[in-house]
Amino acid sequence: MSVVEKLHTADPDVVATMRDIGAHARDAAKVLRSAPRKQKDAALLAAAMTIRADVDLILAANEKDMEAAQARGLTGAMLDRLKLDDDRIEAIAKGLEAIVELEDPVGTTITEWDMPSGLHIERRRVPLGVIGIIYESRPNVTADAGALCLKSGNAVILRGGSESFHSSRAIHTILEHGLDAAQLPSKAIQLVPTTDRAAVGEMLKGLDGSIDLLVPRGGRSLTERVTNDARVPVLGHLDGLCHVYVDKDADIEMAQKIAINAKLRRTGICGSAETLLVDEAVADTHLPAVVKALQDAGCEIRGDEKSQALVPGISAATVEDWSTEYLDAIIAVAVVPGVKGALAHIAEYGSQHTECIVTDNQETADKFLTDCDSAILLHNASTQYADGGEFGMGAEIGIATGKLHARGPVGLEQLTSFKYVVRGSGQTRP
Amino acid sequence: MSVVEKLHTADPDVVATMRDIGAHARDAAKVLRSAPRKQKDAALLAAAMTIRADVDLILAANEKDMEAAQARGLTGAMLDRLKLDDDRIEAIAKGLEAIVELEDPVGTTITEWDMPSGLHIERRRVPLGVIGIIYESRPNVTADAGALCLKSGNAVILRGGSESFHSSRAIHTILEHGLDAAQLPSKAIQLVPTTDRAAVGEMLKGLDGSIDLLVPRGGRSLTERVTNDARVPVLGHLDGLCHVYVDKDADIEMAQKIAINAKLRRTGICGSAETLLVDEAVADTHLPAVVKALQDAGCEIRGDEKSQALVPGISAATVEDWSTEYLDAIIAVAVVPGVKGALAHIAEYGSQHTECIVTDNQETADKFLTDCDSAILLHNASTQYADGGEFGMGAEIGIATGKLHARGPVGLEQLTSFKYVVRGSGQTRP
Repeated sequence: MSVVEKLHTADPDVVATMRDIGAHARDAAKVLRSAPRKQKDAALLAAAMTIRADVDLILAANEKDMEAAQARGLTGAMLDRLKLDDDRIEAIAKGLEAIVELEDPVGTTITEWDMPSGLHIERRRVPLGVIGIIYESRPNVTADAGALCLKSGNAVILRGGSESFHSSRAIHTILEHGLDAAQLPSKAIQLVPTTDRAAVGEMLKGLDGSIDLLVPRGGRSLTERVTNDARVPVLGHLDGLCHVYVDKDADIEMAQKIAINAKLRRTGICGSAETLLVDEAVADTHLPAVVKALQDAGCEIRGDEKSQALVPGISAATVEDWSTEYLDAIIAVAVVPGVKGALAHIAEYGSQHTECIVTDNQETADKFLTDCDSAILLHNASTQYADGGEFGMGAEIGIATGKLHARGPVGLEQLTSFKYVVRGSGQTRP
Repeated sequence: MSVVEKLHTADPDVVATMRDIGAHARDAAKVLRSAPRKQKDAALLAAAMTIRADVDLILAANEKDMEAAQARGLTGAMLDRLKLDDDRIEAIAKGLEAIVELEDPVGTTITEWDMPSGLHIERRRVPLGVIGIIYESRPNVTADAGALCLKSGNAVILRGGSESFHSSRAIHTILEHGLDAAQLPSKAIQLVPTTDRAAVGEMLKGLDGSIDLLVPRGGRSLTERVTNDARVPVLGHLDGLCHVYVDKDADIEMAQKIAINAKLRRTGICGSAETLLVDEAVADTHLPAVVKALQDAGCEIRGDEKSQALVPGISAATVEDWSTEYLDAIIAVAVVPGVKGALAHIAEYGSQHTECIVTDNQETADKFLTDCDSAILLHNASTQYADGGEFGMGAEIGIATGKLHARGPVGLEQLTSFKYVVRGSGQTRP
């Protein structure tokens, strides 16, 4: 039963609550659309100050979530994602201040030109309207996503995971306080006040046309559900199945460093590498060097027959391994016939997220960068650079792998649209 | 019963045919993605030549469609849209040549920058993949849409109206011939070979993930069905309910000229004005002047009480008139309290397509241009300028009023996405 179907049995109170939230967001969006940068920044600075002042309140709320999570037997990694401490709360405040420093994209001229008719045409950046964010346990998303949407002039409806309900509510109350302090509508950032899953179903239906864009943040089951069931546009990605291809003209040492960083710097993020491809022309030399370096760094290797023959300690990869996002210290390894073979493998099993080629051959690199159809292609750099901050965009709300609207890191600019402003002197069209 | 539901009773042959078309398009898109400009232009030039050479064949095919349409009792306007003659066929050939002249957007660098990490980041334009176009009776769309998709490196699946079946097939055969001549896959431009409506349902479902974007071209019932039922992204607009607002600081003569042009130059296009708003401060002078000019030009006027009191021959407008796209020589007229009143009226009844303000007051114009949330805002120029050609984009495939991906005229650039090409020298992320 899909989420949308579940709706038909939804609590009428949830439906009414969500409809109100949608209407409030739509109203708030009208004010935010033309809110000046100063006012938006003031709200964020006030919130950052209050977060520091109210650390104890946030910790107490988080303690409730942690107790409930432990009682429900959540695992270590999930508990860690949920937990807040002084440092993490300070990081949330700093995150808000970092967004204050970013340029306001709204109202800027993207491009302008004159026409022979005498018309002057300007393409001017405008907010999208109302963004819906559906996320899981990490409570800091409440602040990050709320602040990014506010700064880009959008109203936002936040639907956090039930595990982080109290923590998110504490942070949200502080954001509301910041909006109040800056004389902005407090409904500019709303948190869904129920953990009833029917609320998600309502958001997927768009709240009577109130939601312009949905952004899921979380594991595959969440993003898949949102992507499949949403009746409004969705920005995000299902998988981050990133590849590192070591070409025959790769420097062995560089290949080792990049492979280790791409796989192991942080294994739980979408930009971590999941598959290593090695050119058959140098499989004898490069594959053992890179694989052993990964093994020494504590990585489990699952390889095709050729890899297994070259290095001991490689278990057999099944077809499933080529399309598995491990998000763990495990990597799949395959020997491929050159750059064409790498491109074919990526086209068949990849997720159009981020791929890397290691080679000193400019021509081979150009072929890879041109022919590969993923959102981010890197030459001689780790896939872990797939990040809005590393692209110079400041904070990001996620990474998109679709080709419509925004692709790659989704930051402030990607949360905007544009309109054409045309100035004439009485022109009528012949 | 929605189109998607109808599917369940669809002819299995249609389902299989459409699945094959989807798979062929996906394969063709892989080749088109990196096809050089020369090759795409060669295909279009060959097609243009063949269209001129095969005028008689096209006319004969069109004659079949015209006979069937007359037998079914189609009205004059529909017959006119369907009809081809020597001039219209020459216009189709010229249209192809005009697209040849346009710059190829694919592979161009949109922007590039360096990061402190030493990474050089380039945002490079790429095609979207496979576009599905669902259109009605005008056979020239077959050539226009096919050519625009080809030039932008996309494969296209064309589903024309059943009325123009033979004409579209004749034109499509010529496009295929052009593709062959240029050694491009003939499946780059496919025409759905059946008039079974189940084929549309299959396209709305996306043909197993083969369609990246749907563009409906036609009347409201078509665009509404596509927008509501599609499970893939749709670019287009439902209504073109454009407004002309005559401000208290408007030059009367300019207001007259713009109103007449905006309403009457061509009444059947989406950029034609449907509602005239006049500032109450000058209603006594400006409204009669503009309305009488429209009446003299043969336009029917439906007005609110204030308008009716000012000029004879105005019938009473109902609430429905404020949201009716007449596409005819009829205009609704209302007196509003200044620019704020105009903005409120447009926000309540508009379709976020195109609006115009006539005023000599720069401050008032700026308020209108900034606060109005439509795709195209014009100051002292006719709404009929809402057109890709008049924006300098060359040919267009339609106008989009949504805020995601493309807004306003949809030309070659709007049929593309981008990817990030990142060049490093061995960077690993700290």
